[in-house]
Amino acid sequence: MTIRPAASETGDPLLLTPGPLTTTKRVKEAMVHDWGSRDATFIGVNKAVLETLPKIIHGQDDFVAVPMQGSGTFAVEAMLTTFVPRNGKALMLINGAYGHRAKKILDIAGRATIVHETPEDTPPNLVEIEAILAADPAITHVFVVHCETTSGIRNPVEAIAALVARHGRRLLIDAMSAFGALPLDARVTPFDAVAASSNKCIQGVPGLGFVVCRKSALAQTRGAATTLVLDLHDQAEVLGKTGQYRFTPPIHVIVAFHQALQEFLAEGGVAGRGGRYEDNARILIDGMAKLGFAPLLAPALQAPIIVTFHMPKDPAFVFQRFYDALKERGYVIYPGKLTVADSFRIGCIGALGAAEMRGALAAIEDVLAEMGVRLAAKAA
Amino acid sequence: MTIRPAASETGDPLLLTPGPLTTTKRVKEAMVHDWGSRDATFIGVNKAVLETLPKIIHGQDDFVAVPMQGSGTFAVEAMLTTFVPRNGKALMLINGAYGHRAKKILDIAGRATIVHETPEDTPPNLVEIEAILAADPAITHVFVVHCETTSGIRNPVEAIAALVARHGRRLLIDAMSAFGALPLDARVTPFDAVAASSNKCIQGVPGLGFVVCRKSALAQTRGAATTLVLDLHDQAEVLGKTGQYRFTPPIHVIVAFHQALQEFLAEGGVAGRGGRYEDNARILIDGMAKLGFAPLLAPALQAPIIVTFHMPKDPAFVFQRFYDALKERGYVIYPGKLTVADSFRIGCIGALGAAEMRGALAAIEDVLAEMGVRLAAKAA
Repeated sequence: MTIRPAASETGDPLLLTPGPLTTTKRVKEAMVHDWGSRDATFIGVNKAVLETLPKIIHGQDDFVAVPMQGSGTFAVEAMLTTFVPRNGKALMLINGAYGHRAKKILDIAGRATIVHETPEDTPPNLVEIEAILAADPAITHVFVVHCETTSGIRNPVEAIAALVARHGRRLLIDAMSAFGALPLDARVTPFDAVAASSNKCIQGVPGLGFVVCRKSALAQTRGAATTLVLDLHDQAEVLGKTGQYRFTPPIHVIVAFHQALQEFLAEGGVAGRGGRYEDNARILIDGMAKLGFAPLLAPALQAPIIVTFHMPKDPAFVFQRFYDALKERGYVIYPGKLTVADSFRIGCIGALGAAEMRGALAAIEDVLAEMGVRLAAKAA
Repeated sequence: MTIRPAASETGDPLLLTPGPLTTTKRVKEAMVHDWGSRDATFIGVNKAVLETLPKIIHGQDDFVAVPMQGSGTFAVEAMLTTFVPRNGKALMLINGAYGHRAKKILDIAGRATIVHETPEDTPPNLVEIEAILAADPAITHVFVVHCETTSGIRNPVEAIAALVARHGRRLLIDAMSAFGALPLDARVTPFDAVAASSNKCIQGVPGLGFVVCRKSALAQTRGAATTLVLDLHDQAEVLGKTGQYRFTPPIHVIVAFHQALQEFLAEGGVAGRGGRYEDNARILIDGMAKLGFAPLLAPALQAPIIVTFHMPKDPAFVFQRFYDALKERGYVIYPGKLTVADSFRIGCIGALGAAEMRGALAAIEDVLAEMGVRLAAKAA
């Protein structure tokens, strides 16, 4: 059987990963130009990007988007080290690798932290958080990951935000793989800042992080940062005054991000984008169930971003062979394992729809047959 | 007269700036694909990039290239905060904005510094540097900018390096707008690290900085950095072990950089690239002299990267009109002024040759006539 492998518009394998992900051809083609960094055209494009981002969380009145060159982690480090003051203390809600990374950032920066950790398949415990906040008045900030890519779990940011606000503390959100797909409404959910990046649910290419910051909170952070480049206050101030970056921006990445935002808005914003990802995730989970794969998370905890499946017990299932055979068929899934369970992950985000998810399922079925794997498929 | 404005291969204005600059069409077209960040193809491309960079300074045996997401300043901050230990002290050689920026980085990071500053048109004074080093044994590092983009001055890094080594101190070089065009030979010029970026003389697009580090010196920096993302030791260690980045790399920027490096090598490396820029600079300076513009710097101090010209005294010369009229003709020069003299700057780098420089000169002559500016042109 010689089937042509699946491919994107530009002939590339389809990325069923949590990002960098498959983008549209138009997003990438927007980069085939040169601009000076002080060029009026580029400055206008960048302004449009920064004005659009707060609207996605209904924060256009009280929030400002501060871009950060680099990756999403650069934005998270910028957010944490700008907002948590040197004499502050952060309660870190951890249930995966990105929570641990945030704690490491604050440890290195010499900020005090306290940890509430739950297993990778378990959301933070609101009762315990409340007890920690009540017991420790030194805590100034709480940090949470909206969708922990480690497992794909959706953490209850709305409930956490309400609790944190009730205790008079400030919330910082890492919404890297959630921003633009999972609703987050700053009008009803109180937080000071949310960090994300260009190459996740907005479907741009990697190279830019950003933090959407509550203006009144950002105004209090002058001089708090412990670096020059990651100082969000300084970055926002210069951009606000001049429209220009302090340091060379990743121009091409930003122009591609602008195109990606137009496509995001044309799809209906969070409702449209998130809705398509919900469909992708449902098709994937249902189809995998028919093939005998069980998801790690209960449906109520599953974000439609990336799905973790238990590794089959059949010794004929060798993950690396499975991964490679799928790649040959044009589908790149996410490599790597979790600590909580022997498992693997498949992403649902990017310029992919029902046809691509069904194609991936057909390829998985084909690969299982080729490997001679027999799984106890659930009845449909 | 309706002349079509000058344009690059992709129809864009020609950037006579110190970067981001005009790149080739092939460099930009390399970005019209999607890759996963753990994709074997991308990992191979990135490996080739990192292996090529030390060779450019003849450092392939003793040096390792450590990439840094972000801009060149991210690489400079990473270099300074990784190499200058918390109890170290750096002598900052300053004759322009980039020297001041480096000092600010160390001030924020809480590292002790001492400054030797000269005017923007004056190189550092070797006798004074020697006296400072002799008088202050606490100084561990010396920082110098190879080509200060502020004026376009070429600082004598070879002589400074020899002096610093004789005093048993370590040299850190910001070679942002020099790397790949001005020779720097690690076999004869002793230094610990040199920082540069993707969007300067290698002619890639912006979004990646890098630091070429002496392996033996980098090995001593474990735990020295005061951030997670800018820690060159950690970045190098993970890349060395896994071939993968700790945090999402700007994949498209790196793939474009790889293409740019192929074109750089095909042009004959530093000799070919630097030679073309020398030609560009000579054509520009000679042509501008005929039009009556005098350069700020003496020929011996002028790097072939960006040339500063004194602003004409004729009141008919209004810089903003000059800039705008040139842009209408397809030539974008560098905006902004120096503190040392009323002046403006024109870059000589990027995918531009003799024809483009002559075209720019013809456009300048045309604009001067249109503005009614009369300059005392020098005889050829």
